[in-house]
Amino acid sequence: MSNIIDGRMLAKKMNQQTTDMVSELKSRGTSPCLAVIIVGNDQASHRYVRSKNKKATQLGIKSIVKEMPEETSEQEVLQVLDEYNNDDKINAILIQSPLPKHINEKYVMSKINPEKDVDGFQVINSGKLFLNEPTNYPVACTPKGIMTMFNEYGIELKGKKAVVIGRSTIVGRPMAALLINAGAEVMVINHYVSNISDYTKDADIIVSATGKLHTVTENDVKDGVVIIDVGQNVDENGKLVGDVDYDDLRSKASYITPVPGGVGPMTIATLMRQTVELAKWSEK
Amino acid sequence: MSNIIDGRMLAKKMNQQTTDMVSELKSRGTSPCLAVIIVGNDQASHRYVRSKNKKATQLGIKSIVKEMPEETSEQEVLQVLDEYNNDDKINAILIQSPLPKHINEKYVMSKINPEKDVDGFQVINSGKLFLNEPTNYPVACTPKGIMTMFNEYGIELKGKKAVVIGRSTIVGRPMAALLINAGAEVMVINHYVSNISDYTKDADIIVSATGKLHTVTENDVKDGVVIIDVGQNVDENGKLVGDVDYDDLRSKASYITPVPGGVGPMTIATLMRQTVELAKWSEK
Repeated sequence: MSNIIDGRMLAKKMNQQTTDMVSELKSRGTSPCLAVIIVGNDQASHRYVRSKNKKATQLGIKSIVKEMPEETSEQEVLQVLDEYNNDDKINAILIQSPLPKHINEKYVMSKINPEKDVDGFQVINSGKLFLNEPTNYPVACTPKGIMTMFNEYGIELKGKKAVVIGRSTIVGRPMAALLINAGAEVMVINHYVSNISDYTKDADIIVSATGKLHTVTENDVKDGVVIIDVGQNVDENGKLVGDVDYDDLRSKASYITPVPGGVGPMTIATLMRQTVELAKWSEK
Repeated sequence: MSNIIDGRMLAKKMNQQTTDMVSELKSRGTSPCLAVIIVGNDQASHRYVRSKNKKATQLGIKSIVKEMPEETSEQEVLQVLDEYNNDDKINAILIQSPLPKHINEKYVMSKINPEKDVDGFQVINSGKLFLNEPTNYPVACTPKGIMTMFNEYGIELKGKKAVVIGRSTIVGRPMAALLINAGAEVMVINHYVSNISDYTKDADIIVSATGKLHTVTENDVKDGVVIIDVGQNVDENGKLVGDVDYDDLRSKASYITPVPGGVGPMTIATLMRQTVELAKWSEK
């Protein structure tokens, strides 16, 4: 009975709409611009930044990548950040994590102008989400991308029993807040909980963000459940897989996201969309 | 088997400790001061403000009550607020709700200096709570007072299944965040949910903040549950009662708060404590 949620297809559709939004903004003189600061030599980080840069350029978004050497001081990063914070041509700023150990990453990140906080991690933006403020503010891209999935697949949230596994500030907490704000009945549980089926067995929607293989198995869910898998794990055979037992769950779930090709592509598409939204909101 | 959580007794104990903290702060030259702004003639509001003022004075906290007439303009309220925000002798500011209709209450409240936000309602303080920041910040007094109850009665939270009924920004949401931060498995449900026992029947802890009679009945809970009742309702006989069927639940619950004499006294004791904490934090 399972319907696979095709994250690649959705991301493509979303990117097409983003391209149209960029054209419209440009036609009235607003040119969306994302600035990424990356410090040091972490290869995975450089790979992520290259792919964000490429995607932005494809969509007509101006992309600035500031590469700084490993030995850069905190003060030097803050100087660049301050310049970007005050540059009206830059709408969105992202500091690629991790920063080298001699830099206080949390402090540096807290200095991003909240109006350019494309990752949605700032305290003030998280507070607006938590309080469901009726204004525009950026939201963490992974859970925001998941909300787009629900919407595009016509998955009803109001009054549904949703379980979020994992309480990180980047995925679990903002995901819970978005679901609460959408009117769902929301449970947030620890990633290390042992008796997971006690929480998931009658859930209508499960979002797993644990980074742990076999977090949700066939016996933990009811027929017709919607399963969103945020995990990116490597299994015993060196294959990229999610948190849940995808093959076993496919026949029980009404909707399920694959890994890869599910949540992942939506996160980067949402990052691009949010860059454009920040540009639009800055027009006022 | 039920143990009644005695909010009056706990508040008294807490106030005694607060008095000691005030003495200690005064001995090093810090004199805690709470300023309350009240606009208009709402009788209930005036009653609340008088009781806060009286309690503060009892505990050695300086209390300023600024009474402004119904016809006060928004600008005039903002001027007083600005003065208090910048007055180093005032550590805590509270604007009594409701303000007259011609004043944008939400806007005025948002202008309280977050470091003097004794109600803990500011976006930035809510964001810190939501993200579980490892710093000092004020938290909404009702849920914070409930956390003191759990602590004083030795009620374990880590790994426990907690259900919060009601998702207000003043009680439900901060309560959920505090429980999540304490390591509980937390469900947040709408106050209007119909099949409440689906959510509460295996809960270890239930916090009800619905303002609705009979929100939780004897059949909705398991033996040994802990029940915290935030409701303040008037029943068919004109008696002040909570949200839950207290008399029926007493024999099933391991702990339960009465109404009156449960959560209520703890809220005002927490407000006083938080005034003193803000004074202490401002010393740095």
